Amino acid sequence: MIVVMNSKATQEQLDQVQARLKEWGFEIHLSKGVERVVIGAIGEKKPVVIQSLEAMEGVEKVVPILQPYKLAGREFHPEATLVKAGPVVFGGEKMVVIAGPCAVENEEQIITTAQAVKAAGASMLRGGAFKPRTSPYAFQGLEEKGLKMLAAAREATGLPFVTEVVNPRDVETVVEYADMLQIGARNMQNFTLLREVGKARKPVLLKRGLSATIEEWLMAAEYIMSEGNYDVVLCERGIRTFETATRNTFDVSAIPLIKRLSHLPIIADPSHAGGKRYLVEPLALAAIAAGADGLMMEVHPQPDQALSDGPQSITPAEFGEIIKRLRPVTEAVGRRL
Amino acid sequence: MIVVMNSKATQEQLDQVQARLKEWGFEIHLSKGVERVVIGAIGEKKPVVIQSLEAMEGVEKVVPILQPYKLAGREFHPEATLVKAGPVVFGGEKMVVIAGPCAVENEEQIITTAQAVKAAGASMLRGGAFKPRTSPYAFQGLEEKGLKMLAAAREATGLPFVTEVVNPRDVETVVEYADMLQIGARNMQNFTLLREVGKARKPVLLKRGLSATIEEWLMAAEYIMSEGNYDVVLCERGIRTFETATRNTFDVSAIPLIKRLSHLPIIADPSHAGGKRYLVEPLALAAIAAGADGLMMEVHPQPDQALSDGPQSITPAEFGEIIKRLRPVTEAVGRRL
Amino acid sequence: MIVVMNSKATQEQLDQVQARLKEWGFEIHLSKGVERVVIGAIGEKKPVVIQSLEAMEGVEKVVPILQPYKLAGREFHPEATLVKAGPVVFGGEKMVVIAGPCAVENEEQIITTAQAVKAAGASMLRGGAFKPRTSPYAFQGLEEKGLKMLAAAREATGLPFVTEVVNPRDVETVVEYADMLQIGARNMQNFTLLREVGKARKPVLLKRGLSATIEEWLMAAEYIMSEGNYDVVLCERGIRTFETATRNTFDVSAIPLIKRLSHLPIIADPSHAGGKRYLVEPLALAAIAAGADGLMMEVHPQPDQALSDGPQSITPAEFGEIIKRLRPVTEAVGRRL
Amino acid sequence: MIVVMNSKATQEQLDQVQARLKEWGFEIHLSKGVERVVIGAIGEKKPVVIQSLEAMEGVEKVVPILQPYKLAGREFHPEATLVKAGPVVFGGEKMVVIAGPCAVENEEQIITTAQAVKAAGASMLRGGAFKPRTSPYAFQGLEEKGLKMLAAAREATGLPFVTEVVNPRDVETVVEYADMLQIGARNMQNFTLLREVGKARKPVLLKRGLSATIEEWLMAAEYIMSEGNYDVVLCERGIRTFETATRNTFDVSAIPLIKRLSHLPIIADPSHAGGKRYLVEPLALAAIAAGADGLMMEVHPQPDQALSDGPQSITPAEFGEIIKRLRPVTEAVGRRL
Repeated sequence: MIVVMNSKATQEQLDQVQARLKEWGFEIHLSKGVERVVIGAIGEKKPVVIQSLEAMEGVEKVVPILQPYKLAGREFHPEATLVKAGPVVFGGEKMVVIAGPCAVENEEQIITTAQAVKAAGASMLRGGAFKPRTSPYAFQGLEEKGLKMLAAAREATGLPFVTEVVNPRDVETVVEYADMLQIGARNMQNFTLLREVGKARKPVLLKRGLSATIEEWLMAAEYIMSEGNYDVVLCERGIRTFETATRNTFDVSAIPLIKRLSHLPIIADPSHAGGKRYLVEPLALAAIAAGADGLMMEVHPQPDQALSDGPQSITPAEFGEIIKRLRPVTEAVGRRL
Repeated sequence: MIVVMNSKATQEQLDQVQARLKEWGFEIHLSKGVERVVIGAIGEKKPVVIQSLEAMEGVEKVVPILQPYKLAGREFHPEATLVKAGPVVFGGEKMVVIAGPCAVENEEQIITTAQAVKAAGASMLRGGAFKPRTSPYAFQGLEEKGLKMLAAAREATGLPFVTEVVNPRDVETVVEYADMLQIGARNMQNFTLLREVGKARKPVLLKRGLSATIEEWLMAAEYIMSEGNYDVVLCERGIRTFETATRNTFDVSAIPLIKRLSHLPIIADPSHAGGKRYLVEPLALAAIAAGADGLMMEVHPQPDQALSDGPQSITPAEFGEIIKRLRPVTEAVGRRL
Repeated sequence: MIVVMNSKATQEQLDQVQARLKEWGFEIHLSKGVERVVIGAIGEKKPVVIQSLEAMEGVEKVVPILQPYKLAGREFHPEATLVKAGPVVFGGEKMVVIAGPCAVENEEQIITTAQAVKAAGASMLRGGAFKPRTSPYAFQGLEEKGLKMLAAAREATGLPFVTEVVNPRDVETVVEYADMLQIGARNMQNFTLLREVGKARKPVLLKRGLSATIEEWLMAAEYIMSEGNYDVVLCERGIRTFETATRNTFDVSAIPLIKRLSHLPIIADPSHAGGKRYLVEPLALAAIAAGADGLMMEVHPQPDQALSDGPQSITPAEFGEIIKRLRPVTEAVGRRL
Repeated sequence: MIVVMNSKATQEQLDQVQARLKEWGFEIHLSKGVERVVIGAIGEKKPVVIQSLEAMEGVEKVVPILQPYKLAGREFHPEATLVKAGPVVFGGEKMVVIAGPCAVENEEQIITTAQAVKAAGASMLRGGAFKPRTSPYAFQGLEEKGLKMLAAAREATGLPFVTEVVNPRDVETVVEYADMLQIGARNMQNFTLLREVGKARKPVLLKRGLSATIEEWLMAAEYIMSEGNYDVVLCERGIRTFETATRNTFDVSAIPLIKRLSHLPIIADPSHAGGKRYLVEPLALAAIAAGADGLMMEVHPQPDQALSDGPQSITPAEFGEIIKRLRPVTEAVGRRL
């Protein structure tokens, strides 16, 4: 940690900062420049330290040197982690393709879709039973009935499934049915929920928050891991920017960055990132080329009848076409579908 | 609602869109331009309609005409709403000043602070008992013990208090102690929590999410109100932008915009918006000049010993100074402190 | 164009808006809903119309239906455009790879780099002679001497070159030497400069502005084209967002979006987008997979001696490695390097 | 400057970095932590140094300690600067109010407006003769004829005027007529133009770029000042964010921040910031309360006939009303109109 004193800091203020650092167990290196005094403090530990120092008189800024995430970071865990969800493995040579509707609407819809996406090459099913909707008047999901339908679809196809959990109270129920728990973008900093899934013994798919930095995202993973659940897979799904031509801005750089900073697998969701059917294919291709470990796509038998996210949903036939285009690119980067 | 067909839409696609609109009970007006057909659909009701239409073949875009929030909007509720929290009234001529530490640390700290801010002119106390922290290793709050301390401070000073609730399970407990429930920025779209406080019979202070649009913010208020709790006060606390010189970008325009779009009171939090002690005063002044109904400021007896948010906390003495500067500006805009 | 009247608009205001529309030659369709009157105006022509209407009493908003760019748009020019710069063709089956240093520093540096990138597979050379630098104290480029060195490098290798022009006064000089003129991100809305290169008879590489929407970018292309120069190639190079882990956020979605909205070729600059050497390869792969017509990369023989943009520059050897990895992905999407 | 080595940096890489720093004349302080080596380098001078260091093997990041702007910064120039433009002084006790139309349209319009705004309390006239428009098909201004009309309005009213210059070639002409030169938001990093006005002997009004950080803005001022022109006034006019309810997001925090970091005066433009007529008053009030040295507002006799920016223009009568509301707030913060 580096503490930069401001240009008008007095000797007394400098002494107080040094005393505080020593009290906290830091070793100190002082550099006196012509215009600034800079203190190098070795041994940084607690997050509170930075805020307290910045609140001291005479301090201009505090620059942390070490990353605040330890369990999620690659520094102390250099080899890549493989996360298993039922028969599926994230982070290996084989790309994981998750497909299914935004929301489970009825048993026929989810079973038909599951069969169709399996036939086209998906290895996992997705479908929402608990839906976080921006409008209180929109369809909110079938809840436990939806989970049962997902389980029936798994029964019928052998595909494991991932589904979102939005209420800490529902974690237990969802764990009973699902192969993997999804934390949605709007809940990425719902710390109560993160702790709860951290205690669950099921892998977690952690979507990036709409305006979350890479660091905050890894801190959210750290929350889950700090409760003992190390099976976390990250999912880039676009961030909020000034651009309105797309629903979100797909931050493809996040894929290689996460690979560098963390040992956790990362997949991409081209459906939510672009928000338009015609963007699913190019964004899926881009994600794979950039090193993603998998993809999650919204597939609905009749997008214009979907109870949510119709404009970004593709049909099973379109999904099949995309899979065909993905195959050569996947192989070109040394992996397989 | 306006449906714009794309330039290559066929007559068949146009017929299908019209049929769907009629099926949903819309009255239709067709405008055929040289390059585009535009359909005016009168009677818009359900949010799902827009998404379904956008997913139809031949549709370029759908432009909603009416605001999606009904209870929170000013259209059907032209007169301003007054919200009472204990003896305090939000939205009236008198400005509400809420002050207190980020987190309750111990009884002495909170009582001393309450006495000091009351003496300086605060009308309400704030203090966190349940803290949502980005790091799992940071101080997470004293929970129910913290609530008891806040109640003791109210006892000692007569100041009602507002405190954040982060877990739907804790709403009942917080309701027992607090005069007002706060929904923090990171939980603005935690719909489970919104519904829960919507069922509670206590007023709610709803902070704007870091990357929430004005419309999403009012939709979050709508969630609470749709459960029967109409006592919602909004709080602007800065949004996330590219600028890093401030912790967030204080969106002062949100104040007059909310006043125009909604009948709910709105206050500002200059402490979180700027993230720096020296910005609290100018941002508080700006908020009041722009029409805010109140302010919420972080005050800590010793900012550099605070367990959280030290850099943006001011001392009771500094708070007193700010109140002095606020008084003439408050009167200049025709209100009082 | 759709004109939405506000809910309190009087009949008189409605009459005035209609009169104005007729005066401008629009055909009018009126839709009266329960809460709003909506006017469909057919025949939209001039940009000023929208602003004038929005300034009229009783008008809530004006929604344009047609795209404001005509020459750059695909609507009236459905087939893709090929742009030639010397022997190189943008937009065809063959990917264009432009490589070279950020700034021309001396003749040896530029000739050596040109030879190295040619050997590794580049088809065009880049190098700055006029440098727009954020600091007035940073290296500003060798100006005409730099252009001569670039010409010497072309002589030595046969590679055509593209170079930035920042001052309208220099356009003539740059046209004399260069095969293609670059408009940098900071000048994307320097309309004087756009007009000037629009009059030049050399192709233009138009980089996206840091905070330019897709529409503004295409309007900048429209500026150049409206002066008679139709040879415009777009270059995505990252936009400014809240994320600080990368220099900019590479908006890979812009590639398929531009392909859909415009007939102009589009390439990507993974060096500026990421700002880090280790991001060049994954972003280059992503761009190609998403459909880019080419790439522009910063290559410097000794990045740590570069007079600008060292952290994002790669060595010729690294460039050669990247080309090797690009080849299979390029072929997988049906194109060639 | 602080150089942080990455956790895998070798001793050889560390030696090379130290050698390079010594070569550049830095004094070195080494701090070896358990996980990182950190080098404090005293004497930082040239901007290129940081980039070169970041490009060296083994370097994780470089943290600059000193601000890159010297002439614009408050550090070496603690007292506030007063800038004179004709009879008007920016930065003193008296607030400067600039008003006038977006564009000069004809002599009658500009003279009438000048008389009206003068009567209502304006101390300076604004009006565009050279207009930077996003569409090549929009009205581009009357050029020198417009300047003559502005001069006639000054003649008629005694109000000095400020007008935008967009082309380096026009600086000389504009200097001949205007009392102050305006650099528009889109040209804030048009370095050629900045240098040109830096050579002019007229004060400059430098608007903040749409996505410019505070630091980049002060660096743009530094460009002008480095050419010898110290009479720079900054103007906050809103930044680009995800929020679409306003044209831009008015960053009111920029006012106190600039006051802290720089000695230059700063004014605000509530018309462009909000983009809506009804936001001009509250944003003007907020700016003054936050410490602005003045305001610039768009006033047009008939906003719905304006050739540009109608929706944000107010009438002279509305301007007069706003001035009345501004007066008590201005006095409340210890200044005068």
